[in-house]
Amino acid sequence: MNTGFLNQIPREIAALDDYAAYAKNNLSAEAWAYIAGASADEYTLEYNAKAYSEIKLLNTVLTDVSHGHTQTQLLNETLAHPIITAPVAYQKLAHPDAEIATAMAAQAQDGLFVLSTLASTTIEDIVQKTQGPRWFQLYFQNTKQQTLELIQRAKAAGFSAIMVTVDSPINGLRNREQRSGFSLPAGVAAVNCQQVLTPNPIKQGESQVFQGFMSKAPSWQDIEWLMKNTDLPVLIKGIINPKDAQKAQQIGASGIVVSNHGGRTLDTLPSPIEVLPQIAAITDYKLPLIVDSGIRRGSDIFKAIALGASAVMIGRPIFYALATAGALGVAHAIRLLRDELELTMALCGCATLADISQDAIWQK
Amino acid sequence: MNTGFLNQIPREIAALDDYAAYAKNNLSAEAWAYIAGASADEYTLEYNAKAYSEIKLLNTVLTDVSHGHTQTQLLNETLAHPIITAPVAYQKLAHPDAEIATAMAAQAQDGLFVLSTLASTTIEDIVQKTQGPRWFQLYFQNTKQQTLELIQRAKAAGFSAIMVTVDSPINGLRNREQRSGFSLPAGVAAVNCQQVLTPNPIKQGESQVFQGFMSKAPSWQDIEWLMKNTDLPVLIKGIINPKDAQKAQQIGASGIVVSNHGGRTLDTLPSPIEVLPQIAAITDYKLPLIVDSGIRRGSDIFKAIALGASAVMIGRPIFYALATAGALGVAHAIRLLRDELELTMALCGCATLADISQDAIWQK
Amino acid sequence: MNTGFLNQIPREIAALDDYAAYAKNNLSAEAWAYIAGASADEYTLEYNAKAYSEIKLLNTVLTDVSHGHTQTQLLNETLAHPIITAPVAYQKLAHPDAEIATAMAAQAQDGLFVLSTLASTTIEDIVQKTQGPRWFQLYFQNTKQQTLELIQRAKAAGFSAIMVTVDSPINGLRNREQRSGFSLPAGVAAVNCQQVLTPNPIKQGESQVFQGFMSKAPSWQDIEWLMKNTDLPVLIKGIINPKDAQKAQQIGASGIVVSNHGGRTLDTLPSPIEVLPQIAAITDYKLPLIVDSGIRRGSDIFKAIALGASAVMIGRPIFYALATAGALGVAHAIRLLRDELELTMALCGCATLADISQDAIWQK
Amino acid sequence: MNTGFLNQIPREIAALDDYAAYAKNNLSAEAWAYIAGASADEYTLEYNAKAYSEIKLLNTVLTDVSHGHTQTQLLNETLAHPIITAPVAYQKLAHPDAEIATAMAAQAQDGLFVLSTLASTTIEDIVQKTQGPRWFQLYFQNTKQQTLELIQRAKAAGFSAIMVTVDSPINGLRNREQRSGFSLPAGVAAVNCQQVLTPNPIKQGESQVFQGFMSKAPSWQDIEWLMKNTDLPVLIKGIINPKDAQKAQQIGASGIVVSNHGGRTLDTLPSPIEVLPQIAAITDYKLPLIVDSGIRRGSDIFKAIALGASAVMIGRPIFYALATAGALGVAHAIRLLRDELELTMALCGCATLADISQDAIWQK
Repeated sequence: MNTGFLNQIPREIAALDDYAAYAKNNLSAEAWAYIAGASADEYTLEYNAKAYSEIKLLNTVLTDVSHGHTQTQLLNETLAHPIITAPVAYQKLAHPDAEIATAMAAQAQDGLFVLSTLASTTIEDIVQKTQGPRWFQLYFQNTKQQTLELIQRAKAAGFSAIMVTVDSPINGLRNREQRSGFSLPAGVAAVNCQQVLTPNPIKQGESQVFQGFMSKAPSWQDIEWLMKNTDLPVLIKGIINPKDAQKAQQIGASGIVVSNHGGRTLDTLPSPIEVLPQIAAITDYKLPLIVDSGIRRGSDIFKAIALGASAVMIGRPIFYALATAGALGVAHAIRLLRDELELTMALCGCATLADISQDAIWQK
Repeated sequence: MNTGFLNQIPREIAALDDYAAYAKNNLSAEAWAYIAGASADEYTLEYNAKAYSEIKLLNTVLTDVSHGHTQTQLLNETLAHPIITAPVAYQKLAHPDAEIATAMAAQAQDGLFVLSTLASTTIEDIVQKTQGPRWFQLYFQNTKQQTLELIQRAKAAGFSAIMVTVDSPINGLRNREQRSGFSLPAGVAAVNCQQVLTPNPIKQGESQVFQGFMSKAPSWQDIEWLMKNTDLPVLIKGIINPKDAQKAQQIGASGIVVSNHGGRTLDTLPSPIEVLPQIAAITDYKLPLIVDSGIRRGSDIFKAIALGASAVMIGRPIFYALATAGALGVAHAIRLLRDELELTMALCGCATLADISQDAIWQK
Repeated sequence: MNTGFLNQIPREIAALDDYAAYAKNNLSAEAWAYIAGASADEYTLEYNAKAYSEIKLLNTVLTDVSHGHTQTQLLNETLAHPIITAPVAYQKLAHPDAEIATAMAAQAQDGLFVLSTLASTTIEDIVQKTQGPRWFQLYFQNTKQQTLELIQRAKAAGFSAIMVTVDSPINGLRNREQRSGFSLPAGVAAVNCQQVLTPNPIKQGESQVFQGFMSKAPSWQDIEWLMKNTDLPVLIKGIINPKDAQKAQQIGASGIVVSNHGGRTLDTLPSPIEVLPQIAAITDYKLPLIVDSGIRRGSDIFKAIALGASAVMIGRPIFYALATAGALGVAHAIRLLRDELELTMALCGCATLADISQDAIWQK
Repeated sequence: MNTGFLNQIPREIAALDDYAAYAKNNLSAEAWAYIAGASADEYTLEYNAKAYSEIKLLNTVLTDVSHGHTQTQLLNETLAHPIITAPVAYQKLAHPDAEIATAMAAQAQDGLFVLSTLASTTIEDIVQKTQGPRWFQLYFQNTKQQTLELIQRAKAAGFSAIMVTVDSPINGLRNREQRSGFSLPAGVAAVNCQQVLTPNPIKQGESQVFQGFMSKAPSWQDIEWLMKNTDLPVLIKGIINPKDAQKAQQIGASGIVVSNHGGRTLDTLPSPIEVLPQIAAITDYKLPLIVDSGIRRGSDIFKAIALGASAVMIGRPIFYALATAGALGVAHAIRLLRDELELTMALCGCATLADISQDAIWQK
């Protein structure tokens, strides 16, 4: 098949995973390797999906949920549902409308949109062409000054929170991407950044990893600096280790994203859903926890919430839907997830997100 | 192969699972997707079979079982064996003789037949053309009046118990079926229902799931209403959660069907055999428990009984046998199961169903 | 390939499992289904091999085993090694030399040979043409008189023990065999039996399993009768349940064969190696335990002995070697196993079978 | 593809495992069976890789590792990193430059090189053509005198430690190699040995394993003799059993190599990484532990160190890289591993090897 972009969603796309084959067809082999691939042997990529399927639900029958809804309060936003589009970089690889299409789709489906520092669309374009709640994902720039300018620009444009990514101070070992020879094609770039991020120059005998990249990596002090230099809430993205979650809470983070970056940084990390219960417990069930990496079904969202999440983010599937049918695809993907979440809630006797608890998880 | 309906059972059909390939061949691709498919990623469909195969038996040798039999008392019926044909909907999809053929086969094999509310044969036709013990499976109708009329018609026709289904107030996420584009072909309909079941109309901003479907879903109160409005015993079908089983017992249900609806409602539910021991314990080993979803072997029946079941229901395999060879196929399928059950009992030293206990299950 | 019988063993046959492909090629599809197949879905067949591979060894280095040997005392026999050829029925299916070839190979390799009641060679032929230690496997006959005559004939012919099979009073559910349409070809028969074993005739409403076959099945009383009517040692073959093992010891059995009949009787029975530790414990480590069903490697023999076995029996692989290269194949197969056993012992620092203990099994 | 030896490393070789296909292409089928094969059913070969992938890491974010390095002290050597090339025999099978190329690559990458007793290059050639730290792997020779001469020659040539192999006093059951008919081709030989190692001649009724090979096998006394007859540190290679590790420490070994010989000796041994924690504990975290058999990623090295290792050895992948691109390939392979190790350390917040602990391993 060579579909081109679809103008309507065929019945064969009945679930998020159905988008992958269409997207693969619309992407170059290199771009597919870049987006579909993950770190090293891709074990974590595999765990991410498998971990959800191994959690069994316990339904509850004959309960009145006719007053049900999926509404939730997340920091400063009242959301119709807890489904957030993740800050996937370089969405122009998928579709010419790129991040504009994703933001429009999120808006149309009453969802929250997060723009990547590595977006291929300018902050100003997003603002001109779309509305709806939006947050800004931050990578620290080459200088603090550049970082400050970036978040100030985002704030000026109405982004209402900063989600700073901390799990990839250095590129993951993305072997599939390396083997493919992928590089950004002409016309796709991180248009909001003044400079490409570069490692420190190293001397003979020094390490490109330690002295090159890691000497520019942000530290806990830098996060505290960031929090002092913005009045927007700051969420920390990319935490798996419960001790890191605890530290984030201690320094006053507004929330964290429990994430292994879709398996793209360090291979053989556990799935976020595996570590979530420990993270929820160590932060005393008080820190807003957003979960990504492996959510493919409304029932996965239900499970994440049952185990302590406040909301979820969706990455690759959004990119695949975008590559298949632009804004229409992304809107459809969000709607599918929301419908599936509502169905799961209904069959488990939960009228609201607050009703979802560990009681709905089967324990042998 | 294109077999058409068989007039005799070939030696290649030596076990229930052997019917599937023949049935697939006799059905349209869409009908096959409808009946063989299950919810979402079909994990529960897979667990259903796998869970039985992972339970290991412990045989017992040199025991006298020459007086053995499989007879059992179930509510108001004395049955020659504990194998019940499940209330599979729309059996006309499988064979023109439809529910008549299944009822005749059950009767010929001394089995109990259950008619679905969504049967493609009228209650009156069943009565005219078949005999033998029969129960009626109930879906709540659009109005209580319609529900009452339906169960009164069933009672008048000699159905001796009502089995009310509670686990599917809304359609499961049957992606395989959706992708196939299945719809009921001309000539196949729920001929005993006055109206198609429809959701409530919803307003802007409301949810089709919560305000549409679930506001018409039955509640525990409705089950109690049903029990007051019939003098037939009422069994509740579709319970997985031990707490629901306990509640069913408390309101006076005559029995329950421990079932995940063949994996067709909510994906990643556990197999009934996984939850059965907890359900048997919480109901104090006193509530008749019928188990379905995944029984494919006489040894599976044996295991279900060892873990607390009183009887079992067989769904898809009956449909497949019907689609392969009509009443002959169904009768053969029931006979296969009964023979396998007797063989398992004999090799485990159990002369009667009452002799089957957890002692026959291998514990590491 | 169509090999015919081989006159020398090619280097491609480096392990027991390598014989299967050669044997399959030399057998009819029906005979292959009969011998390679097992009960129902063949789960137990699969466990039998897998259970050994999942037990991990712990080697021991730098130990002097230069005085090592595999000699063992088993009842009335001093054996050079603990490898026994199992009483596989109808060996004429594999090779015209049949049981004669197997017995000659066992003798050439200093092994113990067991003749099946269902042998396709007469007891007298075995005696005329072969020597070496031999035991007789007994199935109870249609009458006690016939049974007595059979064991008296065996004793007269120099068979030094009776191994009575108790786990298959009725044929297993051998679906693969049934689908193939297998029946014994002309010229292959149970030549030592006066009559084919037949079930009791049954009346209307009775069960072929319970009233037909099982009313002729032997009981513990029959085993005691057997022990009273022979002065040969009696071993009971086909025990998996530790309670049965205990009972066998209590009535004075000389030993038992821990076996699931190669997975041919009741599917989903555990592997003998799984139950062996419990059986060894419940019989106080005093009853000779022979293990079969799944032994394919010398390291498997080592593991069985480490977990409580005195000796092992080899079934299908012996048949496959016979079907490949007659007596030469069987002798080679026994030698392979013995060499592998010695190698395992040497690398685990065990000079004798008595040195093999649970210390050589890796525990996490 | 038929590559011949590569002069540059293509982007398709992004990880160690990528070398295997290139190497297979450059080797005869027999040589491939020899090097890629392992013992018996190759279960241990499979565990070796799988065991690492099943250990999950726990990253740590926002930690300053800009001063990081991989330097370590191992016995008498200060190493830039803990990656040692294993003493793989007969490297001329892979490439005409053989052990010279491997030693040069190790030197270029600041690594430690170990020469096998069964090297296809003379000790003197290594010394003339390469520099850098090197150890000598010892197999006991036919006589103590020959053994002494060998280690004295090694010492004279600047090898700074003796690594004596103790887990293969007899050839493993290398079925894949046997089936292939592999033998050393002309021009490839153990050029440093005076005689081929031969078993003792045996008498009628004796065992080739016990009286043939094992009567020439070294014992703990022989290791003590060795330690008395050299002033070089002696490491014992091939220990899996914690009790053997303890004994090695008690007799004063300078270190051990926790190894199952790449799965080439006794099948179904556990992976070294499985036994490592017990070995580290029983030797009180004081004995230098080198781990091999299954290391394929820098993250595997990280895991080994976290669980108690001081350094690691790389066997087959080095051979494959050599067979693909000579010294260039080996150097690239070592660099890949070191880069991956540094990346793993950086993402886990470990600046030095001493910072790596069990805290970086995910425990459910």
